[in-house]
Amino acid sequence: MALLPNIEYAEATPEVRAVFDDIKATRNSDYINNFWKVLANDPATLRRTWTSVKEVMAAGALDALTKELVYIAVSVTNNCEYCIHSHTASAAAKGMTPQMFRELMAVIALANQTNRLANGYRVDVDERYRAPLSK
Amino acid sequence: MALLPNIEYAEATPEVRAVFDDIKATRNSDYINNFWKVLANDPATLRRTWTSVKEVMAAGALDALTKELVYIAVSVTNNCEYCIHSHTASAAAKGMTPQMFRELMAVIALANQTNRLANGYRVDVDERYRAPLSK
Amino acid sequence: MALLPNIEYAEATPEVRAVFDDIKATRNSDYINNFWKVLANDPATLRRTWTSVKEVMAAGALDALTKELVYIAVSVTNNCEYCIHSHTASAAAKGMTPQMFRELMAVIALANQTNRLANGYRVDVDERYRAPLSK
Amino acid sequence: MALLPNIEYAEATPEVRAVFDDIKATRNSDYINNFWKVLANDPATLRRTWTSVKEVMAAGALDALTKELVYIAVSVTNNCEYCIHSHTASAAAKGMTPQMFRELMAVIALANQTNRLANGYRVDVDERYRAPLSK
Amino acid sequence: MALLPNIEYAEATPEVRAVFDDIKATRNSDYINNFWKVLANDPATLRRTWTSVKEVMAAGALDALTKELVYIAVSVTNNCEYCIHSHTASAAAKGMTPQMFRELMAVIALANQTNRLANGYRVDVDERYRAPLSK
Amino acid sequence: MALLPNIEYAEATPEVRAVFDDIKATRNSDYINNFWKVLANDPATLRRTWTSVKEVMAAGALDALTKELVYIAVSVTNNCEYCIHSHTASAAAKGMTPQMFRELMAVIALANQTNRLANGYRVDVDERYRAPLSK
Repeated sequence: MALLPNIEYAEATPEVRAVFDDIKATRNSDYINNFWKVLANDPATLRRTWTSVKEVMAAGALDALTKELVYIAVSVTNNCEYCIHSHTASAAAKGMTPQMFRELMAVIALANQTNRLANGYRVDVDERYRAPLSK
Repeated sequence: MALLPNIEYAEATPEVRAVFDDIKATRNSDYINNFWKVLANDPATLRRTWTSVKEVMAAGALDALTKELVYIAVSVTNNCEYCIHSHTASAAAKGMTPQMFRELMAVIALANQTNRLANGYRVDVDERYRAPLSK
Repeated sequence: MALLPNIEYAEATPEVRAVFDDIKATRNSDYINNFWKVLANDPATLRRTWTSVKEVMAAGALDALTKELVYIAVSVTNNCEYCIHSHTASAAAKGMTPQMFRELMAVIALANQTNRLANGYRVDVDERYRAPLSK
Repeated sequence: MALLPNIEYAEATPEVRAVFDDIKATRNSDYINNFWKVLANDPATLRRTWTSVKEVMAAGALDALTKELVYIAVSVTNNCEYCIHSHTASAAAKGMTPQMFRELMAVIALANQTNRLANGYRVDVDERYRAPLSK
Repeated sequence: MALLPNIEYAEATPEVRAVFDDIKATRNSDYINNFWKVLANDPATLRRTWTSVKEVMAAGALDALTKELVYIAVSVTNNCEYCIHSHTASAAAKGMTPQMFRELMAVIALANQTNRLANGYRVDVDERYRAPLSK
Repeated sequence: MALLPNIEYAEATPEVRAVFDDIKATRNSDYINNFWKVLANDPATLRRTWTSVKEVMAAGALDALTKELVYIAVSVTNNCEYCIHSHTASAAAKGMTPQMFRELMAVIALANQTNRLANGYRVDVDERYRAPLSK
């Protein structure tokens, strides 16, 4: 059970409503999920978080679906139940097929495995991997 | 400093050489990195891990670059220094531009942030997110 | 469902009862929560853990409420559902207002975000930050 | 070694310089640390992150030092070397004494310990802890 | 609720049935648990994961029960509810007594505590600990 | 570089010396490692931590080597460099062979992999795994 109650549109302040309206417009949907409704208890964090999500998750050099897959990878690694459910739904809506989801899970599992082999054996970073990316 | 020494090709057993040869052939490169050289202390784990990497990271419903990005997302979240360096190099070789890398980092950071907001407030999963993906 | 049953006062050994009595006296409350009741299956761990909690969480150079906030920050980052609930209750009892809770969540989320930016980009520690704290 | 080079003020774009100027003004210091210099490779993330840090870490219902302590707790739990060093320096500048630092470390360690006892034994959340905070 | 449905034996493909049959034969039991039934949605990952589990968890230089204890230690640290439950059952079936379980929990909790003290204080690795294990 | 300096025996207070003496006597060695020397900056935490280590890591229903292996599993999963090095040395001194170490790493890696498959697919816990351990 959430530690603070959902704030519904009808009871929201104008500041919160403005964010809710932007979420609806951006997502072309009338649905506001529990995450935003709970964050609405803290209008400043609601606004700041939504602004970041809107800016960061929009298509850029990476398309929007790839960003959702990365998001799921982090959420599975951290075991955020809410985020796994909501972003799997979001990725599916953006075109993730079940086969893509299964491959995604396999990569996440593999990386978690090899991360521990590298850390456990304390493998030294190869010299050639140390150069920074070229700008 | 690694807990077990690198095993070089010249001193490797035939079983290890077979894996090293397959790595070289698959990657079309003569370079064997420290991760594989250290794992060569355990030929069974070397073989099993390489077989998994070869199978899981190959292009499928997700292309090979997308899989590298997911891999980096896990490695950053777990803070595996070796894996961040080696897979950033690998992703760059597969076409990741610096702009893609920067957007990747922004998504990883955002997801780690919102994961804690969802977990910290104990947000309840929306009913509509609970349905399984259709097969 | 817990892996070991709650041990109630009536069925507890004298060793366990002594710890339960000290918890009640220290907290000025008759309530023993599920954490201590489950730990009572292992009297040595019950005693050791309670002794540590009593010693570490008492007011010192940091006041007791600040220590609860730090505790919540760790629990959210690790996603310990039990600990988030019990220590949020505990912090509220010690004076944490909802506004303090909301700011706490915002700081936790921010730190989890910037941790990954620093780790992901592999930012080098500035020379000036390397000096130890003065005793 | 960082994956992207530090961007110094002299070579920075006007957008980056504006952020650097605001950091200097807000902190009343001429020093820009490596974190911001590396983030300057991605001006949008630099601006967004700095705006969040400025807003979230400012004194509110929680004072600025308490926020730094919470930040350190997260960074230690995630093992972000950079963040531990930079925010320990920052906390010290805001009045954290060595005794406060030692108590902070003790609380962080304790919480990480009890988090695993609660998760490992799968302790059920007490009914009385499930009520949301009153608004 | 799982993101993909359980695949029962009756509806499984021959490839999946072959893995299920091997699980039953290896474990000398007719029971296939939910983990394998869900993984059966991805026959390649089912086969690869089962092959690894069968190979890695078999008695070797470490006996099978010790491997289960290590498995539980990882699962508690990562907070994998499913894995804690299933491998506690598995360990109990292999001879783990309640007293062993309680000591296991105490070690896991202690290590999570001291890990943060070492990381938080940034303790330097002693020279004598840096030598690799002798082959 | 550690955030607080090592406290050497010659400069230690009687309270710290008493702990150092007990470490030496218990381990039958004159060596005090950096972990204890840094903790000596906080005599209460030094004493409390050493008391816990002495009590928890002693042979009981689990032998002392098995406890070291569990400790390493936690430390690798959390990526505590100091703890991996010091407890690998400790385990080796208690009889861990290189083959045991290699199998340990394989189990740790496997568990980290399957933890994410179970968490990512949100596999439901089987009814039969929910029963508590018999006392």
